[in-house]
Amino acid sequence: MGKLHTVQVDTPSHDYPIEIGTGILGDFDILKPYIGQKAVIVSNDTVAEYYLSFLESCLKDNHIEVLSVILPDGEQYKNHESLNKIYDELLLAHADRKTTLIALGGGVIGDTAGFAAATYQRGMPFIQIPTTLLSQVDSSVGGKTAINHALGKNMIGAFYQPELVLADLSVLATLPEREFSAGMAEVIKYALLGDADFLQWLEKHMDALMQRDVELLACAVKHCCEMKADIVAQDETEQGIRAWLNLGHTFAHAIEAEMGYGVWLHGEAVAAGMVLACRLSEQIGCLKQEETERVCRLLQKARLPDAPPAFPFERWLQHMRRDKKVQNGKMRFITLKSLGQAQISEIDDMECLRQALLPFSGSQSVL
Amino acid sequence: MGKLHTVQVDTPSHDYPIEIGTGILGDFDILKPYIGQKAVIVSNDTVAEYYLSFLESCLKDNHIEVLSVILPDGEQYKNHESLNKIYDELLLAHADRKTTLIALGGGVIGDTAGFAAATYQRGMPFIQIPTTLLSQVDSSVGGKTAINHALGKNMIGAFYQPELVLADLSVLATLPEREFSAGMAEVIKYALLGDADFLQWLEKHMDALMQRDVELLACAVKHCCEMKADIVAQDETEQGIRAWLNLGHTFAHAIEAEMGYGVWLHGEAVAAGMVLACRLSEQIGCLKQEETERVCRLLQKARLPDAPPAFPFERWLQHMRRDKKVQNGKMRFITLKSLGQAQISEIDDMECLRQALLPFSGSQSVL
Repeated sequence: MGKLHTVQVDTPSHDYPIEIGTGILGDFDILKPYIGQKAVIVSNDTVAEYYLSFLESCLKDNHIEVLSVILPDGEQYKNHESLNKIYDELLLAHADRKTTLIALGGGVIGDTAGFAAATYQRGMPFIQIPTTLLSQVDSSVGGKTAINHALGKNMIGAFYQPELVLADLSVLATLPEREFSAGMAEVIKYALLGDADFLQWLEKHMDALMQRDVELLACAVKHCCEMKADIVAQDETEQGIRAWLNLGHTFAHAIEAEMGYGVWLHGEAVAAGMVLACRLSEQIGCLKQEETERVCRLLQKARLPDAPPAFPFERWLQHMRRDKKVQNGKMRFITLKSLGQAQISEIDDMECLRQALLPFSGSQSVL
Repeated sequence: MGKLHTVQVDTPSHDYPIEIGTGILGDFDILKPYIGQKAVIVSNDTVAEYYLSFLESCLKDNHIEVLSVILPDGEQYKNHESLNKIYDELLLAHADRKTTLIALGGGVIGDTAGFAAATYQRGMPFIQIPTTLLSQVDSSVGGKTAINHALGKNMIGAFYQPELVLADLSVLATLPEREFSAGMAEVIKYALLGDADFLQWLEKHMDALMQRDVELLACAVKHCCEMKADIVAQDETEQGIRAWLNLGHTFAHAIEAEMGYGVWLHGEAVAAGMVLACRLSEQIGCLKQEETERVCRLLQKARLPDAPPAFPFERWLQHMRRDKKVQNGKMRFITLKSLGQAQISEIDDMECLRQALLPFSGSQSVL
């Protein structure tokens, strides 16, 4: 029990720690240096049931004025209505620029609450308490905040760093199996984009990780956070290598948009998206088919999809043209130079893309 | 005709120039280094009628793909609906992170379009072309962007710097008299908060300035921009002295909220607010009554109100408690140590505030 690791994130705009441990959710000593006299907790109804009253008590016992805003659970609520609900509550509570906003939940809560913090009175301090594996290894770190727009995922947002990220591995015990797997997709992503040794380590330990072995999980979370901190320190606002973290995401966003947000979990879509990124890497001559198959096997071990749903190539294109990596109208993808080494590829040849997507382009393709 | 002055703004996050001149609105040489292959112009129906087709032609002639978004004119449209209209158009036009957003208009357009630029895909480049005196001397400089919320003005926003500010004095010729005066309120604000010599200069030249003498106006705009650039360079995100620029604004925001946005022009409310700030400065023993009267005379010369509308003290308090300068629940005001020297004052003694507002606290006060 207690604090196990600290990962320091240093960006041009702000430095802050990620505290990783077990049973640290209500550890006021960790929160104390980062919290004002008043705090507003944003959570969802699922997470709130398990952990909200515990966190509220911890703060109230230490004489912090606390208000909680509970959003419905699900990616479909990462939208303007939820954002406005947070703004309304902040204004009604007379929250000011010294009030601390705490995001208690997964990626949807972190992104939505983070964007509210970035824009309420042009910025208020906020703390991330990620409660899913996905948000612990990825979305809570690095200061990307956003909401979805009917025409595209994460289209409205800001780069805004938290004061603190508190990752308590104990809370993963209550995470549904599908969500746990979805988080594992992002863990595997780090191995693919930048660390072949970590890929081997994951292959070796995936069964134990899926059994939620706390010590192994702590190692994995720490390693992913370190990799992300290193990338974000070099490129806070995604002018270059930060885009590697989007491995599989251009395809994933198309899957999510096509299926309707929340039908596939984000991590599930990322898993299928990474397979497509591998297939595209094959098409441009970087990866061998057996390497893609090796990735598929690891995804299967993590109980993740290794193929996307099928829909027409034109629909894939339509969704992907809205990707934030598009520059001056040109489509850019994160591909793999090799397993463990990402690169940014501008894809001019639509035939490469068509081939990569061929088995998944539905009835309009000739198979 | 042409470029008269360049003021350089250097902030921790971004450096950019303010180009001041006459007839420079369609000078592509000035725009060229800052513009992508695609540009989206945001304007309002009033300004668009005068200048939009001219700017569009200038860009199209230089092979820039241009789309324009026209909002209705008025402070009451600085809201979520306008913001969403901009987002929708950007998404439908497949605008990406290299597309340039151009704000062509006054403070409302600059603030709304600037906030859209700050948050579309987590930030796209934007150019300010302020077309009112107020926006040329104040709101287009320094990177404050925001929209209003039903419960408070400028409550939702971001600090986000433009690539370029282009201030063309020629466009002031078409500005209605009331709007020109409103801009002059912000010019006077700079003198009061930081430059007693400039105050004397304004007293001497106010009649000619009100006749819109272009050379004197260029001097005044340049001087205000230099003062603002200096303050913003020291304190981009308003941790300290940048708050001085809010002289009169806490009261002004209360007036605007009470009367309904757009009934009083922002500059008119700031003029009355500065008189109240002077009266509060008297109450805390910093200013003499004759100094407040001197300020009132200058405001009258600029055809500005030197007193606010009357409404109950409780309503004043209610509005002002939502001010962004409130910290940990304490009310903070910009007051004057002397004419030409601002300071931040935490006001604990409500009696000081009551006395300053006494003649303007409506029927519930005993006069």
